[in-house]
Amino acid sequence: MATLGLIEYQAATAEVRAVYDDIKATRQTDSINNFWKALAHDPVTLRRTWQSVKEIMAPGALDAVTKEMLYLAVSATNQCGYCIASHTAAARKAGMTDAMLAELMAVVGMANETNRLASGYQVEIDDRFKS
Amino acid sequence: MATLGLIEYQAATAEVRAVYDDIKATRQTDSINNFWKALAHDPVTLRRTWQSVKEIMAPGALDAVTKEMLYLAVSATNQCGYCIASHTAAARKAGMTDAMLAELMAVVGMANETNRLASGYQVEIDDRFKS
Amino acid sequence: MATLGLIEYQAATAEVRAVYDDIKATRQTDSINNFWKALAHDPVTLRRTWQSVKEIMAPGALDAVTKEMLYLAVSATNQCGYCIASHTAAARKAGMTDAMLAELMAVVGMANETNRLASGYQVEIDDRFKS
Amino acid sequence: MATLGLIEYQAATAEVRAVYDDIKATRQTDSINNFWKALAHDPVTLRRTWQSVKEIMAPGALDAVTKEMLYLAVSATNQCGYCIASHTAAARKAGMTDAMLAELMAVVGMANETNRLASGYQVEIDDRFKS
Amino acid sequence: MATLGLIEYQAATAEVRAVYDDIKATRQTDSINNFWKALAHDPVTLRRTWQSVKEIMAPGALDAVTKEMLYLAVSATNQCGYCIASHTAAARKAGMTDAMLAELMAVVGMANETNRLASGYQVEIDDRFKS
Amino acid sequence: MATLGLIEYQAATAEVRAVYDDIKATRQTDSINNFWKALAHDPVTLRRTWQSVKEIMAPGALDAVTKEMLYLAVSATNQCGYCIASHTAAARKAGMTDAMLAELMAVVGMANETNRLASGYQVEIDDRFKS
Repeated sequence: MATLGLIEYQAATAEVRAVYDDIKATRQTDSINNFWKALAHDPVTLRRTWQSVKEIMAPGALDAVTKEMLYLAVSATNQCGYCIASHTAAARKAGMTDAMLAELMAVVGMANETNRLASGYQVEIDDRFKS
Repeated sequence: MATLGLIEYQAATAEVRAVYDDIKATRQTDSINNFWKALAHDPVTLRRTWQSVKEIMAPGALDAVTKEMLYLAVSATNQCGYCIASHTAAARKAGMTDAMLAELMAVVGMANETNRLASGYQVEIDDRFKS
Repeated sequence: MATLGLIEYQAATAEVRAVYDDIKATRQTDSINNFWKALAHDPVTLRRTWQSVKEIMAPGALDAVTKEMLYLAVSATNQCGYCIASHTAAARKAGMTDAMLAELMAVVGMANETNRLASGYQVEIDDRFKS
Repeated sequence: MATLGLIEYQAATAEVRAVYDDIKATRQTDSINNFWKALAHDPVTLRRTWQSVKEIMAPGALDAVTKEMLYLAVSATNQCGYCIASHTAAARKAGMTDAMLAELMAVVGMANETNRLASGYQVEIDDRFKS
Repeated sequence: MATLGLIEYQAATAEVRAVYDDIKATRQTDSINNFWKALAHDPVTLRRTWQSVKEIMAPGALDAVTKEMLYLAVSATNQCGYCIASHTAAARKAGMTDAMLAELMAVVGMANETNRLASGYQVEIDDRFKS
Repeated sequence: MATLGLIEYQAATAEVRAVYDDIKATRQTDSINNFWKALAHDPVTLRRTWQSVKEIMAPGALDAVTKEMLYLAVSATNQCGYCIASHTAAARKAGMTDAMLAELMAVVGMANETNRLASGYQVEIDDRFKS
């Protein structure tokens, strides 16, 4: 189920439970994803990763659904099966409709295509795009 | 400047000029990116790629700036130098601010990190995420 | 079980058996991984790949466990399910503890994140790092 | 020099300077890499990324040079030009010799090869490697 | 079976059936791959993707089996499980023998290795290769 | 010019010269690519890599130009700048025309697109494609 196994709430240390509790409160859910249960074998990484995700995914200049869709676009590009499954669910919970999902996937597919055409043809950056 | 060189408007065939004209009209610009000038050596691919990009990037269930940000997120994940440069410019033109760019990059970075943690720890997909 | 199937020892030609025997002797094991059994349909690639792996993974300036951890870090970055599973086992056999695995994964995750931040922000190489 | 430019120490806010000072103290250097100067436009990401890198790269179950070599192995696999340049320098500073670099690159190359052979031949995970 | 499920012929709209019929006629088969059935939830993407694939994969300067082998080489490099399975079948149907498959995989593996050696060692492009 | 510099023929040891000589004879050229000159700092890797490339790229079930095109397709997918430049040249020398290059790039682009659509939509492998 994972290299080091999954740590359920009942079996977790106080340190791990504190992170689980914060995940539940922040996401307003009773479920803890397998991802966090797998990381719980390394409480330092669990805490740091959760704190980073919590800070990064909070609405700011971008709203929650846009951030979740960006996360899904990256996961689809990397072809991470776990992440595609969990972030498709998360993006939907944040408001992504089937029509939005379909347009997202179309953009992801096209960008992956033109990325290779640009690199494959050795196209040089236009002067006006140089930073 | 590109494997097969760049074809400027003056040197282009009528077929290629028609695509260039449509790009200029659609994007309300006088500039043609090097990407299209490099593809112009293969007019069939030029036409098909432009038609696909035009169709995919038109506002629909997602607005223009969201689509451009998804494009940029994919390009940053793939580390395509040309595409990062051109789509940073395109996303800005569509309304992406510096604050939005910063949040986008933070999400891209985090997603690339957790993609590898999920895969590296061999985390199995939670039953409730299974499609 | 693999595109061309798996070739077991009993069904193998003398040429393939010689490689299997060398794998068993070098790794001090009775098991042949599915990877080699799948490659065995192409004895030339089987022999060359094994000879290369044997030469590269032998302790030298780097010891065995460090080499196996580097292999695992690459496999996690590429998200190769088979390779993550087999090289997690190999690295453990070579001495990687759970604590070492956890630190390895943390580095892999972080490097994948900052790789995209550096590329996504189009950061130029510092003069003092230029080779 | 970077999408949003580089922020030098003299031009930095107190918040950014505090991070720069900690980088200098931790790494015992007077130089701040362009990477941090580019991130400084987003002080929240600058601080979080530095704190994470500092925590992850501190010696623990793995020593500093092993961690830097893992970072370089990931960066070479992702072909991130900036990261290869900066982490080759960092790994050398931490004690990586030319001989260690050569063996690292040989492992990285081989792992990238066998990752594709395993996936390309659709090899199934051996039962004894299943987590 | 896919994020949005699979749409079978009997349940498909006239628009989707038209694409399915063209796939069957072009490929001289009665089967529609799951890939197309999953895309059918987004008829615009289904149509555009099929039209592009049909145009690109038609024999031209390259014959059908060479094109299918290139498709498989990309899929193996990206480690896309679905695409490796379906394009191994497609390439075989187009004439790829086991011996050709074995040589293809050997090239794919080697190219993935030397790609990282070239990038990892920061090798500069030879003047005579500059476009 | 490369992490460890480039070793020219005149400065090379007898061991390295022997490899250079074999490259020149096999490829019927007077030029040694920077790639080999960079690897020459590690004569063991230089020899092994050259022997592998020589064995793999020799015409067999696939001819030379097909093998070079597969190499280029992988390099474009990985976006390895050095490898795209050198293998575009090598493929042309082996007989790839501009029309063949254009079709190759179209296939590479399309495969990169559909790889992400298949993974992003979590499409399951059709029973008849299961190995």
